Amino acid sequence: MSPKGFTVWFTGLPCSGKSTLAWMLQKQLKEINLPVEVLDGDEIRQILTKGLGYSKEDRNENIRRIAFVAKLLTRVGGVAIASAISPYRDTRDWARAQIGNFVEVYVNCPLEVCIQRDVKGHYAKALKGEMQHYTGISDPYEPPLHPEIELHTDQESLDESIHKLLDGLAARNLIAAARKQQAGPTDWKL
Amino acid sequence: MSPKGFTVWFTGLPCSGKSTLAWMLQKQLKEINLPVEVLDGDEIRQILTKGLGYSKEDRNENIRRIAFVAKLLTRVGGVAIASAISPYRDTRDWARAQIGNFVEVYVNCPLEVCIQRDVKGHYAKALKGEMQHYTGISDPYEPPLHPEIELHTDQESLDESIHKLLDGLAARNLIAAARKQQAGPTDWKL
Repeated sequence: MSPKGFTVWFTGLPCSGKSTLAWMLQKQLKEINLPVEVLDGDEIRQILTKGLGYSKEDRNENIRRIAFVAKLLTRVGGVAIASAISPYRDTRDWARAQIGNFVEVYVNCPLEVCIQRDVKGHYAKALKGEMQHYTGISDPYEPPLHPEIELHTDQESLDESIHKLLDGLAARNLIAAARKQQAGPTDWKL
Repeated sequence: MSPKGFTVWFTGLPCSGKSTLAWMLQKQLKEINLPVEVLDGDEIRQILTKGLGYSKEDRNENIRRIAFVAKLLTRVGGVAIASAISPYRDTRDWARAQIGNFVEVYVNCPLEVCIQRDVKGHYAKALKGEMQHYTGISDPYEPPLHPEIELHTDQESLDESIHKLLDGLAARNLIAAARKQQAGPTDWKL
């Protein structure tokens, strides 16, 4: 039997910590030799969805393309890690239905903490009205109702969040199934 | 060691037989349990490159996106089969450089035979001037100078072409490397 792929889908407000978690999770899964790729929303916008804006329709088109690639990676036995605000519940559910082996991770961080972090200064601009369609400020964010995993990045350390993630994946037998017939060390290192 | 992915890239005129060969190759590789996905140019235009046209720039953008997905599939150990006219040599060479483990298959079929086939009636429209930017008629096609595999679909049967393909992949040790640690029957059936 071929190794079984899966998709980990990070959703949350801007600056909630999605990308940091995604890249760190990739690092951990690479250490146990899983074939893993990060599909980062901002990066994908440079390649697959150049020219799309931030209207509901364009955001959904962006997510559909990420979901398409995640589906292919999952089908060939890879691990796809998607990191995208993906603010609309029905679009995430659509992605779940497309992909099948899908783990939704809600990166839950209060808006005020995200605004404090404001890595790129976009919240400040959005609050001044200089950026339109900004999730959390001038655009909606619909939190998941039943995410497989929920992280609280304002209360947990990065290590704690990553452990919760790895435990959540292991509890669903995803890591063992993906590792089947993959050689490599058995322990992850943090 | 993880199984090693690769990309088979079909290029050729419209109606030269690329898609037929791509789907048939996928069928054969699935029978030996390889994790394989077809990236069909026309299908990709419905999903990843919706809105793009047929100017040189748009065609190249289309190819860049297909190459991006093929690269990811190849990296996680999958087999990507791309089927796209991909008329420009430098764009195909760019795809090759991006992907690394790349097999260019030139589906060589004389223009007059392609025009006779005209599956979708597009050649007829292009010849009447009702379709612009049509490869072979009003747009250039730059044949590969050193393709790994060259097929002559006007002279070979489909079975012959598929055998040449499988032999070409096997000769490059790609099938054995991709099969490493994959279970399944050893013989392909035609």
